[in-house]
Amino acid sequence: MSIPKDINPDLAKERKSATFDVEEFSAWIYDSANLLQMKRLIEEELYKDLDDPIELDYLSYEDIYNRGLKHSVEAVKKLRALQDRLHPGGSEIYPTLMGGPVAMALMPAGTPLAVHVVMFTRALRGQGTPEQYEKFGRRADNCEIIGTYAQTELGHGTYLRGLETRADYDRQADEFVLNTPTLTSYKWWPGGLGQTVNYCIVVAQLYIDNEPLGVQLFVLQVRDEQTHAPLPGIDIGDIGKRIGMPGVNNGYLGLKNVRIPRTNMLMKNAKVLPDGTFVKSPVSQLTYFPMVYVRCMVVLSNCIFHAQAVTITTRYSAVRRQSPINPNLPEPQILDHLTQQMKVVPEIAAVITYRLAGGKLYKMYVQTAKAVNRGDYSRLPELHALACAMKASCTYDSAFGIERLRLSCGGHGYLASANLGNLFTWATAACTYEGENSVLYLQVGRILLKTWADVLAGKQLMPTMAYLSECARWSEFPHWSGDWMCLVQALQFAATNKTRIAYKNYNERLKRDLSPPEASNATGIELTQAAELHGRAFVANTFYEEVTGSSKAKRSASLNKLLEDLLELYLIHTVQRHMADILRFIRLTEDHLTSLQSRLETALAQLRPNLVAICDGFDFHDKVLSSVLGCYDGNVYERIFEAAKKSPLNKKVVPASFEQHLKPFMKSNL
Amino acid sequence: MSIPKDINPDLAKERKSATFDVEEFSAWIYDSANLLQMKRLIEEELYKDLDDPIELDYLSYEDIYNRGLKHSVEAVKKLRALQDRLHPGGSEIYPTLMGGPVAMALMPAGTPLAVHVVMFTRALRGQGTPEQYEKFGRRADNCEIIGTYAQTELGHGTYLRGLETRADYDRQADEFVLNTPTLTSYKWWPGGLGQTVNYCIVVAQLYIDNEPLGVQLFVLQVRDEQTHAPLPGIDIGDIGKRIGMPGVNNGYLGLKNVRIPRTNMLMKNAKVLPDGTFVKSPVSQLTYFPMVYVRCMVVLSNCIFHAQAVTITTRYSAVRRQSPINPNLPEPQILDHLTQQMKVVPEIAAVITYRLAGGKLYKMYVQTAKAVNRGDYSRLPELHALACAMKASCTYDSAFGIERLRLSCGGHGYLASANLGNLFTWATAACTYEGENSVLYLQVGRILLKTWADVLAGKQLMPTMAYLSECARWSEFPHWSGDWMCLVQALQFAATNKTRIAYKNYNERLKRDLSPPEASNATGIELTQAAELHGRAFVANTFYEEVTGSSKAKRSASLNKLLEDLLELYLIHTVQRHMADILRFIRLTEDHLTSLQSRLETALAQLRPNLVAICDGFDFHDKVLSSVLGCYDGNVYERIFEAAKKSPLNKKVVPASFEQHLKPFMKSNL
Repeated sequence: MSIPKDINPDLAKERKSATFDVEEFSAWIYDSANLLQMKRLIEEELYKDLDDPIELDYLSYEDIYNRGLKHSVEAVKKLRALQDRLHPGGSEIYPTLMGGPVAMALMPAGTPLAVHVVMFTRALRGQGTPEQYEKFGRRADNCEIIGTYAQTELGHGTYLRGLETRADYDRQADEFVLNTPTLTSYKWWPGGLGQTVNYCIVVAQLYIDNEPLGVQLFVLQVRDEQTHAPLPGIDIGDIGKRIGMPGVNNGYLGLKNVRIPRTNMLMKNAKVLPDGTFVKSPVSQLTYFPMVYVRCMVVLSNCIFHAQAVTITTRYSAVRRQSPINPNLPEPQILDHLTQQMKVVPEIAAVITYRLAGGKLYKMYVQTAKAVNRGDYSRLPELHALACAMKASCTYDSAFGIERLRLSCGGHGYLASANLGNLFTWATAACTYEGENSVLYLQVGRILLKTWADVLAGKQLMPTMAYLSECARWSEFPHWSGDWMCLVQALQFAATNKTRIAYKNYNERLKRDLSPPEASNATGIELTQAAELHGRAFVANTFYEEVTGSSKAKRSASLNKLLEDLLELYLIHTVQRHMADILRFIRLTEDHLTSLQSRLETALAQLRPNLVAICDGFDFHDKVLSSVLGCYDGNVYERIFEAAKKSPLNKKVVPASFEQHLKPFMKSNL
Repeated sequence: MSIPKDINPDLAKERKSATFDVEEFSAWIYDSANLLQMKRLIEEELYKDLDDPIELDYLSYEDIYNRGLKHSVEAVKKLRALQDRLHPGGSEIYPTLMGGPVAMALMPAGTPLAVHVVMFTRALRGQGTPEQYEKFGRRADNCEIIGTYAQTELGHGTYLRGLETRADYDRQADEFVLNTPTLTSYKWWPGGLGQTVNYCIVVAQLYIDNEPLGVQLFVLQVRDEQTHAPLPGIDIGDIGKRIGMPGVNNGYLGLKNVRIPRTNMLMKNAKVLPDGTFVKSPVSQLTYFPMVYVRCMVVLSNCIFHAQAVTITTRYSAVRRQSPINPNLPEPQILDHLTQQMKVVPEIAAVITYRLAGGKLYKMYVQTAKAVNRGDYSRLPELHALACAMKASCTYDSAFGIERLRLSCGGHGYLASANLGNLFTWATAACTYEGENSVLYLQVGRILLKTWADVLAGKQLMPTMAYLSECARWSEFPHWSGDWMCLVQALQFAATNKTRIAYKNYNERLKRDLSPPEASNATGIELTQAAELHGRAFVANTFYEEVTGSSKAKRSASLNKLLEDLLELYLIHTVQRHMADILRFIRLTEDHLTSLQSRLETALAQLRPNLVAICDGFDFHDKVLSSVLGCYDGNVYERIFEAAKKSPLNKKVVPASFEQHLKPFMKSNL
């Protein structure tokens, strides 16, 4: 089966129908034309001579690991060489591109080096002393040693203080003695830990003279640098197959009286002195600050999975023809079915919205990091609340969005070569890692309770919380104009009133003699709902401000019109999604509701000619999408067929299993 | 790692806390104590000496197929032998148990023989003449030939009339000439088609003298019975990896001037005579009747996937301890977190409700089949609408329910050995096969439009539609008592009003000169919503009738109390889920809404002591659950560890990849 050189005519037609300049859109979403050009240049360079990713589908688990490791090593080499050539001393190619779309093209099975690059080296730099960086960090940066970050245990996840691994200080020997005293304290999950790394950072409870001193980080060598054999006292291995990320080599680690020098505890903040004196970290507020950064990254990366899925689905929906609308005409592109538009377009809008909101969150993080360096921690709780709420809602919306998109491709979405199933396994993993979503919403809920007390006390609130004070002053929702500001305010009003109710119920429970954490647990459903609304109101408002704010002047009229259509669709869809809460607090008439539905359908029609072009504007290389349904040229059926031909079962006319199992069975006269 | 002999103490405690008799519950849900005992006896017999299913996780694609075929052949032999021994001439063991939980234990990769058993043999019997049954059907029943049912094409799915495969009658030769004239007409997806079957039923457009005569079924031999080599003109193979069901061997089939005797067209209904005369089927209404049967089966089987997932999750949630509620106590069972209950308990209630509604649908099918045999087709449209709506809502609710349950297990839900990911791939496949869900909802929507015209004309409606007439008479919703009947009526009232609005908008579009199908497409969003509500109102009402109706007298008071608690939870949760529609049509006060939330929380508390026992009552054998998180004994961590140890990566202390890739990399002085 040869793939036609031409673009599928339906896709070509779609591209002609666009009412905006795709290049302008791409430059906008990539933050600048320069960054976009650089991205393309880098990709052109990197994607020569890649292995066919389809091959991975047919390998055994062990062979996938080996192949994934090969890809990973090659990727590091390529990226470092390119960084040195294009911008020596920079980091925008290596290590940055060891994550994101480029990583997916270079290392489609995932990589056991991800945690090394993203967390191990960062922690050595950020949590270690300069001497410790010299001893471990520099070697890690040069990949002379490979490490991971071992925090989660078999029995302990999000609740850090529950960790059981212990590091006891032995004053005589000037050493820590590391132990995982129970099965549930085995480290479990760290990427690369299984067979790949020879070092790791172990997160353990520090004990001095049996006195617990909280969780600290310890550098531990786990395998011999020459032979790679596990060192004494170390029980290490692979945790077995997961539902996705087959090449990541997640591992386990058990420790039995493993000794490390005192100086292997990372001591930038807290310290243990040779005599066993424990010096506390001067800045306890900072414990969760690195998590804020990671959650920003999770939002942005899930946004990319989501964007890939919507690109694949939109292109396929323009190529696929099925089920007549007008019985006298040929079967239409499925994108002309209104129900299909309703599956695809809100996901496109969600991708753009989360991209903006994730970008804004990251800017806030950078500003806050600067403030923190000045000793100003005032905006940390606000940022923490936003990062939690957005991480939870973005990962949930992207994971379930990708699955709905996959379903909207019908049976062919079930093909591994469509790559939608794979994207789902990546996206959904983020719902539970780096803070399980419900736990995060509950944290946000508790922050909202505190904030509501401030509202009642008439205190000034943080900027992203300020709407709570304003809405609290309204005895009822102001005039329903239905304009964008009104829709954003409706979400804020609902978030406010859900917070108010949760606060009321929480306090009634306190009066009935529940302790604060018990009352908070008993109010968990309502707290979670308030937190979710708080996050979505922020996300919606971010999009609203981008479209209507000053940056408008930098964009062409046609791009602004497109973004306005997307905003219209996004706000109406989000308001409809939370309509139960909105109708609870705002009296909408039948006319209001009819008008929203009719505006929704108008927005879908307005956007219809631009859908393929918007997805083109996400500018995913075919090697990144890696999808028979989503290729730029739209030659879907030829590519499905070509991929099928690669199945090893098709290499022989008659499989060996015929003589072995099937023939004796059919001839057995059952 | 040895697995303790004891039951995990938390699980043991849960079992003691149950307020009802688990055996009575099991007998109720399995329809009788006898059926339950028979099931257990059969499982005890069948599950000796099974291969360890974990091994499948580590095999290559090709090896999984071979292993799956071996399991399939063994399963058929075991089941037939048991059928012959326990009840010769019956069918409740073979072929029935080639699907369902037993099949999952015997053939964990799925089976390439499923379509042979479920559709190929059934179609030969149901659509063939007695002579055709003698020629093909008997051999198929004895597995002397293995077949599949080849309908879906690469470019054509749910819309049957769009199929391109053609069968041209050649009068001279008394033969049909079969062709797949385009790439998009290749048959694609049939289970077993790849390398397993030697026969199939081809669904093709019949042409006589180039005149199209609609879709007919043709028996085609595709491989030589002795050598298994594909026959001339036949291009056959495997479609490649899917996201689940790795052992099903879905295949493709291209046909080039393949000739078969005229008598290979299945002619129970329509016929082609030797002279080329086409005799139409006398009963055109029956074309979709077999699909109703299949959709009943899909509902019941997705219900089982869902029940397995909720059993696994509930047991794990009772064993897992995480995140303190009371800081002075040890970390609680996560099932004591209200947010976790809110994830688990509605799924338990949904499983039971769909089990009942699926059972009721199946009874209606059996009754209607009898009526059809008497020539009475009057209830076909009603049954068709219900089967479509329930297939769509059950598959959607179970698939997304399973994924939410998996997420509620945190990271460990991502382990393949948890089996939740696998259950998801089975459940979600049913959202697109046997009628894509949105297409089904649109069909229901169009039936609702016709029914609404009957309402306006004052006509008598079918029993399951009758609520539409009743609700249409209410100018507003009667007094909100909040009792169960009121909650069911609220769903019905919402379904009625959504139908009314869709009808109004549809007719306005007709007046604006859209053709009926165009108007129906333009009203697609609202039609889909009305259809979904119609289905859910039926499902809710079925549960309500079971709990409050005459069968109550056959159950103990404690079981009735349990079912009442579940009904309370289910109705409130379903009403909350559709609250946006309910508030649109029914003016609820803040007190009403507060009361619902408080009742919901009370119901969760009432059910809390019974959750593990209810899942025990689903009576899944550990071999069926096949989950390290869900085993009856609750020794979760030991089983996770034991499963991990089976990873082939753990067989060597140092993997070969170290010398090959990792060492040169680390020593390369990057």
